[in-house]
Amino acid sequence: MAVPPPGTATIDLNSDLGESFGRWTLGDDDAVLEVVTSANVACGFHAGDPTVLRRTCERAAERGVVVGAQVGYRDLAGFGRRFVDVEPTDLTNDVLYQIGALEAFARVAGTRVAYVKPHGALYNAIVAHEAQAAAVVAAVRLWDPSLPVLGLPGSRFLDLAGRAGLRTVAEAFADRAYTPAGTLVPRREPGAVLHDAGEIARRCVRMATAGEVEAVDGSVVAVDVGSVCVHGDTPGAVAIARAVREALAAAGVGIAPFARPATG
Amino acid sequence: MAVPPPGTATIDLNSDLGESFGRWTLGDDDAVLEVVTSANVACGFHAGDPTVLRRTCERAAERGVVVGAQVGYRDLAGFGRRFVDVEPTDLTNDVLYQIGALEAFARVAGTRVAYVKPHGALYNAIVAHEAQAAAVVAAVRLWDPSLPVLGLPGSRFLDLAGRAGLRTVAEAFADRAYTPAGTLVPRREPGAVLHDAGEIARRCVRMATAGEVEAVDGSVVAVDVGSVCVHGDTPGAVAIARAVREALAAAGVGIAPFARPATG
Amino acid sequence: MAVPPPGTATIDLNSDLGESFGRWTLGDDDAVLEVVTSANVACGFHAGDPTVLRRTCERAAERGVVVGAQVGYRDLAGFGRRFVDVEPTDLTNDVLYQIGALEAFARVAGTRVAYVKPHGALYNAIVAHEAQAAAVVAAVRLWDPSLPVLGLPGSRFLDLAGRAGLRTVAEAFADRAYTPAGTLVPRREPGAVLHDAGEIARRCVRMATAGEVEAVDGSVVAVDVGSVCVHGDTPGAVAIARAVREALAAAGVGIAPFARPATG
Amino acid sequence: MAVPPPGTATIDLNSDLGESFGRWTLGDDDAVLEVVTSANVACGFHAGDPTVLRRTCERAAERGVVVGAQVGYRDLAGFGRRFVDVEPTDLTNDVLYQIGALEAFARVAGTRVAYVKPHGALYNAIVAHEAQAAAVVAAVRLWDPSLPVLGLPGSRFLDLAGRAGLRTVAEAFADRAYTPAGTLVPRREPGAVLHDAGEIARRCVRMATAGEVEAVDGSVVAVDVGSVCVHGDTPGAVAIARAVREALAAAGVGIAPFARPATG
Repeated sequence: MAVPPPGTATIDLNSDLGESFGRWTLGDDDAVLEVVTSANVACGFHAGDPTVLRRTCERAAERGVVVGAQVGYRDLAGFGRRFVDVEPTDLTNDVLYQIGALEAFARVAGTRVAYVKPHGALYNAIVAHEAQAAAVVAAVRLWDPSLPVLGLPGSRFLDLAGRAGLRTVAEAFADRAYTPAGTLVPRREPGAVLHDAGEIARRCVRMATAGEVEAVDGSVVAVDVGSVCVHGDTPGAVAIARAVREALAAAGVGIAPFARPATG
Repeated sequence: MAVPPPGTATIDLNSDLGESFGRWTLGDDDAVLEVVTSANVACGFHAGDPTVLRRTCERAAERGVVVGAQVGYRDLAGFGRRFVDVEPTDLTNDVLYQIGALEAFARVAGTRVAYVKPHGALYNAIVAHEAQAAAVVAAVRLWDPSLPVLGLPGSRFLDLAGRAGLRTVAEAFADRAYTPAGTLVPRREPGAVLHDAGEIARRCVRMATAGEVEAVDGSVVAVDVGSVCVHGDTPGAVAIARAVREALAAAGVGIAPFARPATG
Repeated sequence: MAVPPPGTATIDLNSDLGESFGRWTLGDDDAVLEVVTSANVACGFHAGDPTVLRRTCERAAERGVVVGAQVGYRDLAGFGRRFVDVEPTDLTNDVLYQIGALEAFARVAGTRVAYVKPHGALYNAIVAHEAQAAAVVAAVRLWDPSLPVLGLPGSRFLDLAGRAGLRTVAEAFADRAYTPAGTLVPRREPGAVLHDAGEIARRCVRMATAGEVEAVDGSVVAVDVGSVCVHGDTPGAVAIARAVREALAAAGVGIAPFARPATG
Repeated sequence: MAVPPPGTATIDLNSDLGESFGRWTLGDDDAVLEVVTSANVACGFHAGDPTVLRRTCERAAERGVVVGAQVGYRDLAGFGRRFVDVEPTDLTNDVLYQIGALEAFARVAGTRVAYVKPHGALYNAIVAHEAQAAAVVAAVRLWDPSLPVLGLPGSRFLDLAGRAGLRTVAEAFADRAYTPAGTLVPRREPGAVLHDAGEIARRCVRMATAGEVEAVDGSVVAVDVGSVCVHGDTPGAVAIARAVREALAAAGVGIAPFARPATG
């Protein structure tokens, strides 16, 4: 992404939503929907029962937040955070099933599923797992080849999606430290996750306006992304998300979804 | 249904399909798809994993068999055959989720979900259960008010669906005995289920051509249906289904689906 | 229960625990374990994954809180709060499965499952549902006929359990209003649930020392129970539970479990 | 295993059982129970509902077949055949949960869980996956350190189990080809699976009496096992299992379980 002229930068803010299930509530979705422009809505395989999915789609649509399908492994007990060695054909079909199910609620809410973002262990697996990355790409192409996918810059997933003709959108993580190579510092390393709302907000402004971020060694690396991922599963996370949005607005950065739902 | 002139009667044949799950195979779907005109495809809540759903939709589409959503309670262990006292709102959303999921595979197969038929305990519950019947009707209306529903003649479900503006299609059961009142003889009573393929086939011809059936007491009752349900979960059932189809054809009865998938 | 001499009354306090699942946390189990003498631990069918069950058993055992099996319908999405029309034979086996699974963790924690309390919709169903009540009784008898069961006074469940030779323990609900007939005021009626910690605590003391409670019409009815159920799923509920325990102690009521785990 | 004097060799025959689930039937368990001496009974995570578990334990006990816990990943849709990257602590607890659940039915049937055999992808994973192998070992030790485990010769699982003081029993596969190194020829390679009942039976006799098998290259390798695994999920498999048993008996090999259920 070339550095935009002052006042013309635009970025999307995305967050995981709809991750409650039955009696169990997770995250403050209403608060997050006031902050983000894209909602990665769970589809029932790792989280999200049908009533949660419908409510989330309806509230997103009411606020003009774009709905994306946050597809994951079939693993409620593990919240989709455990790699599952699914056969690629089955994975393609699992993803199709989830997108279709969410689409029902998006339509009832007067909108449409406008993009796909893999969740948790699937997200991480297809950074490098060729067959599973291709399986997710195949599902999106079968469903609607005009649908963009959201993922990690440099991942096999985005690479294969681009080659297959899908629009790809790379995302940054607001609260994560970066290596000099532009990859994320692994969570198990010290300093991998940032906690200071002001610092996080300033970094997001820099990413959106200058296309760069300061790595853990002080060097500056390019971060060419169309969206920034924020969290809402703790009160602290919501406060950070708000700080990011306010700082972007104060810096004159436009905050707008990267995708538009189809009509008709 | 008025008695049609000779040679002009038409009937649909429907059967439950796509009820395998993972390692577990159920029914001879390929054989049944050669017989029926409408496939009630499971949607994953009582049976049917995503790969099964896709294959079933593809094979149905290849043979020109119309795909309907066979929606059920979320109960794999009970195969959807146990009443679950789901809140109506949750039931509406469970049904929407299932229709949407199946629609993904119908579209990939080049067709669309063309009708909805409740399964098992849900089918039986909404013969009389007002709130659950209304919940299923609400789901179909939210999804697509032009979609017909298939159910038991005289059920609250079909009654409420009709009042809500949905097209309703009543079905007969090829292998079930009828009471003089035109209802099914309960399964637990002797003679409730017929086993003679020839007799079953002759009864189906009479239903399709004369709109009547001989009840258990020998009286003749009107059976005004648009579809006849046949089974395929045992070799014997498949043989009966074939006999029904052949007898209908031999009697000059047209065998055609009651619904047509939307286009576009 | 005859009114005990002053200073000799003893009561058990029980609460539902171990109802988190995977990523989803529910209730403040550590706080509740400081209050109660009996822990109704979920067994994985309505809530509670294996890691949650083990931790709950270990923490209960460390504090000398007795572990009971809180068995429910196989219904994670409904948290066991929806009636499921399970065949009695299957229900017996579902209950056996759950008790056995929890026993593994009780043993690892150095204790044993010491009683059985049905959960949610199953609890409510077997107040009157003869076949399901008998099915739960059958499971406990098959498992260990020396194990007591905890339930609603006057329920078919406790009646059948008693006739089958099981020890039965009736429980009161600390925060629920009673009818003049000694039954619970249904939740949907106004005033069914009490919220004032002081009032709730005073009522519990009266139940424990005098075996009576003031009904909604001001009349006094006998409440002959061996345990009082308190909740821990909200901060307010934990505060009420603490108030009940403190008031009982201040009134000289002994607080002790009704069951003892087997040894060996 | 030193070569036993003629007429003194003894071997166990084991097979996977109890793998039906709800409406779905798998395998001819009754036929297999006439052949084997040890039943690896599914525990509900990859297959086997509680009613299936109970019936399987009862029929095994009636025939004097020893019951073992066939523990697997929590993955009904994948039948436990997909690797799941479960945290070791969670895996230990998943295994404990499954053993405990099965024990309930073993006890009701008048027997006890007498050994543990991992299933499917878990079986394969812990041939080499140190952390998961250790997690399964930990579960068995926590449950009952006197319980033997059944697994692949040379696997990390059996190695760690032995170091932890568990009795280990290695098994051969009746219908699998061996490499000159004594490992199984991978399934994807030609000739990996044998189909001729007579040949399979002769190989099993040689394994049991001489402790050796002919590898795919014609060389002879030592196969030192205490049990041979046979299958029962197809009519052909059952016929092979019968042939193996008959050949062993005809050769004077004793067929007896390697484990004995605890008493009391």
